[in-house]
Amino acid sequence: MIQRLAIIGVGLIGGSLARALREAGAVGEVVGAGRSAEHLQQALDLGVIDQAAVNAGDAVRGADMVVLALPMGSMEGALRQIAPWLEEDAVVTDVGSVKGSIVTAGRTALGARFARFVPGHPIAGLEKSGVAAATPALFRGRRVVLTPTGETQIDAVEQVSTMWQTAGADVSMMGAAQHDEILAATSHLPHLLAYTLVDMLVREHGQDVFDFAAGGLRDFTRIAGSDPVMWRDIALTNREAILDVLQAFRAEIDALMEAIDHGDGRALKDRFARAKQARDAWQDQER
Amino acid sequence: MIQRLAIIGVGLIGGSLARALREAGAVGEVVGAGRSAEHLQQALDLGVIDQAAVNAGDAVRGADMVVLALPMGSMEGALRQIAPWLEEDAVVTDVGSVKGSIVTAGRTALGARFARFVPGHPIAGLEKSGVAAATPALFRGRRVVLTPTGETQIDAVEQVSTMWQTAGADVSMMGAAQHDEILAATSHLPHLLAYTLVDMLVREHGQDVFDFAAGGLRDFTRIAGSDPVMWRDIALTNREAILDVLQAFRAEIDALMEAIDHGDGRALKDRFARAKQARDAWQDQER
Repeated sequence: MIQRLAIIGVGLIGGSLARALREAGAVGEVVGAGRSAEHLQQALDLGVIDQAAVNAGDAVRGADMVVLALPMGSMEGALRQIAPWLEEDAVVTDVGSVKGSIVTAGRTALGARFARFVPGHPIAGLEKSGVAAATPALFRGRRVVLTPTGETQIDAVEQVSTMWQTAGADVSMMGAAQHDEILAATSHLPHLLAYTLVDMLVREHGQDVFDFAAGGLRDFTRIAGSDPVMWRDIALTNREAILDVLQAFRAEIDALMEAIDHGDGRALKDRFARAKQARDAWQDQER
Repeated sequence: MIQRLAIIGVGLIGGSLARALREAGAVGEVVGAGRSAEHLQQALDLGVIDQAAVNAGDAVRGADMVVLALPMGSMEGALRQIAPWLEEDAVVTDVGSVKGSIVTAGRTALGARFARFVPGHPIAGLEKSGVAAATPALFRGRRVVLTPTGETQIDAVEQVSTMWQTAGADVSMMGAAQHDEILAATSHLPHLLAYTLVDMLVREHGQDVFDFAAGGLRDFTRIAGSDPVMWRDIALTNREAILDVLQAFRAEIDALMEAIDHGDGRALKDRFARAKQARDAWQDQER
């Protein structure tokens, strides 16, 4: 049971977590902080939070659980802001898409309190945004990855793990570097490819190019509608893993071009069939 | 009004066209041909065709309109098969995704009849397949591109254009080379990228990698579930345009890598924002 939960950044993710914990009767009081007074008022009106704090430092006073639900670019500043005001046994976690940079920022900003910081990442779609879209069901059946370090206290990890399980998520543990490598491949790379394709199409053929597109392109490029600032921040904070995976993908394109250039139908069919098999197996598993 | 329509390949596309024309009262008799006797019987049972011919040559005898609704790899053989049996004023069209190679094949296979061949491409999704999925609504509001040559007779182009408009489609005309260049960018490239990404992910991380994927990857890779043989054939028949567009995309990836490597947040944000704007505008236009 969380006595007092501080949510720093009350949007879709932070708001959904608060609502899920409240629905499960797993939280006493929820206090929210955020840059926009209007959004905080909305969160109060919707009953997502019980109190709006004037700033992040104020929000964490008296809180036994602190969740940073902010864009990657705001995490480091928030960690520095809350550090002086944290209760001695408060547990801190975050929801950022990149973990290595947050571990580094946490170690610097939190000092001795770093042992009670449990970096986390709920892998949930972000088709919508804002606290109005918050729903207690957002994390049900979704994966949450925690990336504690060797210094992280076990009871802190357990508290964060229990919190996410209470919200219905499946919790995994791995190192921050491994997380960043996998997410660079499964999430960051496809977003970058989708942005790159749409940008190239429109620069070379103009907006009318979409008159000659079918549903396949529509699905493929849906993630190109994502927030540019959020993705700039991810590209910059997970720089090395993303460059590695782009390099690997470039080598795959070279191999593909060679097979097409040589008219190697067998290599092409094998490659496509392997991909189809894996994609179909994933689809079946989801059902 | 089409008196006798021959559909060579009675699957989703051929079957849907037959059903749309029948619903509009725009066709007298529909005769189908195809490799699978079982599928032809199904088409008869569903009332999609009135007669099943023993082969493509037999199907086109007495037909005033012939539609080749076959995979790219079967088009050239079918053109050769029907050539000796075509009525003098019969109009021939096809639904292949690549047009340049079909123009070449048609010129060789059809000889003097080439002037009545109107290459075409209905740009419709292929999430399903087979005649059982055929629906008269498949082409409603969809784009059909016709790529007549300088030799194509105008009345033949008009007949094919009217046929597709009757089925509810918007008809555009352009050269085969331009069609193949645009479709290489809007359709062939995304399919190849999706196949390549899924294949790379599973080879490097195993099938469990999808445990760490969200809805974005699911949509992005949906087209990796497409038919490998169909896409092998497209890759080989639109070889040059596809190599050009892969080369251009590779250069875009290089520029992206450079921006990430240099920590150039402004270039990244501008690039992502341009793509988001174009993608959002397309989405709004669809509504």
